[in-house]
Amino acid sequence: MKKIIVFLALWTISAASIAEPYSVQRVEPANWWVGMKYHQVELLVYGDNISATTPAIDYPGVAILHVKNADSPNYLFVTIDIAENTKPGTFPINFVLDGTVQSRFDYQLLAREKNSAQRQGFSPKDAIYLITPDRFANGDSKNDAVPGMLEQPNRAYKGGRHGGDIAGMEQQLNYIAAMGFTQIWPNPLTENNMEKYSYHGYAATDLYKIDARYGTNEDFKRFVQKAHKKGIGVIQDVVLNHIGSNHWWMKDLPAKDWLNFPAEYKETNHRRTTVQDPYAAPADKELFVSGWFVPTMPDLNQRNPHLANYLIQNSLWWVEFAGLSGIREDTYGYADQAFLSRWAKTIMDEYPNFNIVGEEWSANPAVVAHWQRGKVNASGHVPYMPSVMDFPNHETLREVLLEKEAWDKGWVRLYEMLANDFVYADPFNLVIFPENHDTSRLYSYVNEDVDLFKTAMVYMATMRGIPQFYYGSEVLMTSPRERDDGAVRADMPGGWKGDTKNAFTGKGLSAKELDMQHYLKTLLTWRKTSAVIHKGKLQHFSPANGFYVYFRYLDDRAVMVVLNKNEQEGSLDLNPYQHFLAGKKTARNVITGKQVTLGSALVLPAKTSVVIELQ
Amino acid sequence: MKKIIVFLALWTISAASIAEPYSVQRVEPANWWVGMKYHQVELLVYGDNISATTPAIDYPGVAILHVKNADSPNYLFVTIDIAENTKPGTFPINFVLDGTVQSRFDYQLLAREKNSAQRQGFSPKDAIYLITPDRFANGDSKNDAVPGMLEQPNRAYKGGRHGGDIAGMEQQLNYIAAMGFTQIWPNPLTENNMEKYSYHGYAATDLYKIDARYGTNEDFKRFVQKAHKKGIGVIQDVVLNHIGSNHWWMKDLPAKDWLNFPAEYKETNHRRTTVQDPYAAPADKELFVSGWFVPTMPDLNQRNPHLANYLIQNSLWWVEFAGLSGIREDTYGYADQAFLSRWAKTIMDEYPNFNIVGEEWSANPAVVAHWQRGKVNASGHVPYMPSVMDFPNHETLREVLLEKEAWDKGWVRLYEMLANDFVYADPFNLVIFPENHDTSRLYSYVNEDVDLFKTAMVYMATMRGIPQFYYGSEVLMTSPRERDDGAVRADMPGGWKGDTKNAFTGKGLSAKELDMQHYLKTLLTWRKTSAVIHKGKLQHFSPANGFYVYFRYLDDRAVMVVLNKNEQEGSLDLNPYQHFLAGKKTARNVITGKQVTLGSALVLPAKTSVVIELQ
Repeated sequence: MKKIIVFLALWTISAASIAEPYSVQRVEPANWWVGMKYHQVELLVYGDNISATTPAIDYPGVAILHVKNADSPNYLFVTIDIAENTKPGTFPINFVLDGTVQSRFDYQLLAREKNSAQRQGFSPKDAIYLITPDRFANGDSKNDAVPGMLEQPNRAYKGGRHGGDIAGMEQQLNYIAAMGFTQIWPNPLTENNMEKYSYHGYAATDLYKIDARYGTNEDFKRFVQKAHKKGIGVIQDVVLNHIGSNHWWMKDLPAKDWLNFPAEYKETNHRRTTVQDPYAAPADKELFVSGWFVPTMPDLNQRNPHLANYLIQNSLWWVEFAGLSGIREDTYGYADQAFLSRWAKTIMDEYPNFNIVGEEWSANPAVVAHWQRGKVNASGHVPYMPSVMDFPNHETLREVLLEKEAWDKGWVRLYEMLANDFVYADPFNLVIFPENHDTSRLYSYVNEDVDLFKTAMVYMATMRGIPQFYYGSEVLMTSPRERDDGAVRADMPGGWKGDTKNAFTGKGLSAKELDMQHYLKTLLTWRKTSAVIHKGKLQHFSPANGFYVYFRYLDDRAVMVVLNKNEQEGSLDLNPYQHFLAGKKTARNVITGKQVTLGSALVLPAKTSVVIELQ
Repeated sequence: MKKIIVFLALWTISAASIAEPYSVQRVEPANWWVGMKYHQVELLVYGDNISATTPAIDYPGVAILHVKNADSPNYLFVTIDIAENTKPGTFPINFVLDGTVQSRFDYQLLAREKNSAQRQGFSPKDAIYLITPDRFANGDSKNDAVPGMLEQPNRAYKGGRHGGDIAGMEQQLNYIAAMGFTQIWPNPLTENNMEKYSYHGYAATDLYKIDARYGTNEDFKRFVQKAHKKGIGVIQDVVLNHIGSNHWWMKDLPAKDWLNFPAEYKETNHRRTTVQDPYAAPADKELFVSGWFVPTMPDLNQRNPHLANYLIQNSLWWVEFAGLSGIREDTYGYADQAFLSRWAKTIMDEYPNFNIVGEEWSANPAVVAHWQRGKVNASGHVPYMPSVMDFPNHETLREVLLEKEAWDKGWVRLYEMLANDFVYADPFNLVIFPENHDTSRLYSYVNEDVDLFKTAMVYMATMRGIPQFYYGSEVLMTSPRERDDGAVRADMPGGWKGDTKNAFTGKGLSAKELDMQHYLKTLLTWRKTSAVIHKGKLQHFSPANGFYVYFRYLDDRAVMVVLNKNEQEGSLDLNPYQHFLAGKKTARNVITGKQVTLGSALVLPAKTSVVIELQ
């Protein structure tokens, strides 16, 4: 009973807030494209008592397949079919009652960009730059304070909005490109009109709209186009699991089952293993998937077929609209499994060369592998997502950097973690990362030891997979060692007028910071054209004497990587590596650019890792 | 060159030590059985210059298929075929040169025991008692010192031979059966005629002979028969990876490639992940498999087909000869993979209901799962071994018992380790264990906390899999907390004449020891007839408040287990478990035997785990 009362109350409020009867307030998606593989689109129509009307379309090639009511009388789900050779154009959808058109919506069918379906997603050729947009660069101070938005700027507060925006990212595209990054993943840019902590972007209040404090949808589209011209793709951060509690749906939920636990707040238990666990109690499994993160993030029930369609179409819409080269999907396993499968499959069917990376925050490769396309799961779950964040590698790398070397400690733990790659369907397509917006900065985690941080960068630039970096670490931005979100996501120096220090120009950077920036730039610039790294195989050697040696190799070329944590200068016996070294004419240190003589041993300075290109 | 010189030297010695030319000293196996699926037996024939002769057999149904020379002239490999309806009997194998019989060997073909092929291997119905035979009971003091054996008894030395034997185990069968154990796994009983540390049994010097200090082959066979009569099966401990350096082969190796690294000692790197690792350097992989454990344990090269046949036949021979109900295979992954596959397949083809458990000492379920029958491996390895030791569970249980409960610590780590069961082809056939001969005693590991130890016993008796216990822990035998082999494998009190304390009779045991013995006996006696444990499914609940609750269930019966580490009395809310509790007529505490009232909560005394049988 309680549940029903809550809903009735919501409807009363919502009905009161809608001005005209039968007037369409929203149709989502508000446009589609001709020539899409996904050509049967379910439109969510919202308007006061709109369910009392019947929609009608008169446009060659477009037919209404079916119309479905929701629990709320203010919604209609209208599925249209767009025949193969339909021409782009605009047509009205008329909403008719008693022979009279009560409301109309002009629907657009657009032409697709050339080669849209065949677009290339991010791949091992790329290096991803993760940006927290509110904290990167304030390119347009006019949109810092937007009237009507619930949270206003407060740069003095680490949990507040600081004013970074799309214009800021756009203005720094040259910097990003020059550093060697070839993909940008901004944290979500969709509207988050929440009272506080809205800067992180994971509490969407409108899934079809860029937050006005970042810019407009068109601004985003232009940003992506400009990035492309500089050889940079853009990855959208998508959240399928939850929305913000100020999402416009919340005033008038389409269906009683639109949300999980709609009547009574229940928090997720975060017990992610319940998904694969053959013995998990059903209630634990249900609580994991259906429980909310926090009261301000209502948990979406993707088992509602209309919501499932909505979310799938929303993702397709952004790819097509903005020209994305990838999706990063947040809190992957927390959504319904069957839905996740269908969501990823539909996107990959539409864009066969696209890429999607999911976040499964587990240190267990068997758990992470469950979600990657091609994995045959005992659970029966068939995944279609091509990539997953490599959290097991991430966590192990960080621990290992600080670990004293021993027979079963230090590099060998990273070596053994990589050995687990046999559980993945496609380990070369995993995204590897030293840090992200949810972790402490690695530089701080390793106690500001630049050598260890450089070693991590060498690893990221040369290991199998697709490396992802976090803005500002190239100039040694710091954070507390324990997770502290607002502090980790600090402002990029130089992103704000009046900043005395400027990472983009180099002004005010210390010698150490400049050196680090140059170091990573050198690595990534080299990586950008290194086919051995993009396509080469991997062979690694059981670590010994503080050295961890591996090779990437392709045809007659090879790259030798020596990770070195030794506190003293040390000599590496090269005898075990003759298979790769013999017959090579040149050996070049990628970082110094100098030729290297590879005799029977290689002397390495203390805590200095090297990348040697062999040809 | 060095290699060849070594071999020539060995042959010179061996030739000198053999008295008569062409006299057969050994034929192995010295007998076979009619009606075996494995009916083409490759006999290893050893005798001075025997390769100069030609073997001949004249027995209906038996034919020589082929004869192969070895590198040493003193060996012949003679493959005989035993046709389907061949009669049991004895026949000579004549070794002929220049038309003259130079030597003969009377070969026996025996009739098989009834239902031999259909014998039931150990299974989840069983509880295994692991015994270190030298340390369990000295039933026959006459064989303590055996003339000609290199190591003589020295009970005062923890690394020495103490005199335990087959007669001792045989005399204590009543005790073992009364405790509720249904399988005995003795550490290897085959001859280990080594200078020192020979008591552990893992350095065989004759693979077809029981060590004389334990008894004879016939003693062993009789022991197994007597055990069967008391409802106890016997599991043989088999070592395929290595032998002892005093093995008779070592004086005259059949082939240059009989051993790995025959000329130059190389130690294994113990890098077990190289087996599955898609990136492992070939040399690391080779060193793992081919390196020796210690200089006194020559590493067998099972890639030599004659050695492979020899080892497979040796295992079949012991199963058939002694009437075994299982094999425990030592250091599983260290042998050649293709051989391991063929070895296990041949045994399981011969005895479809048999069981084999392999030792893969890794805490990583993905690594352990690689070896279990039914697992589809990315590496292409096809395993046929039905069971593997569950080291991941073992290590986690031990750590968890001592861990303070927290959101991500304590029981939840065991819960999450079990969730990994999706990686196994058959998790219910894994062998679970709190300790073995290579670990510290769990009771000592948990700082002699009887309550924690009892909780571990509850877990062992009720968790999925086949529990294995170590002799003496039922009376709280102790050991150093860090591994100390000789001390862990201490003498069972009461196993030696004059022992003041006697675990078998209870004489001299403290109240705490008697209580523990009774506790385990109660659990295992109940387990022996509990179909829910033998065949039931498992469901577990996300641990909370220091409790870890799981159910085994079958049809309308269920067993509720509450593991409890709380330092204070606590109340467990029973609401989450109503699916299993509702409608049950009786609830009995298995340990106290008393009825339990299951209302809305269950009050549990501090650190007391319970097993409640529901019907």
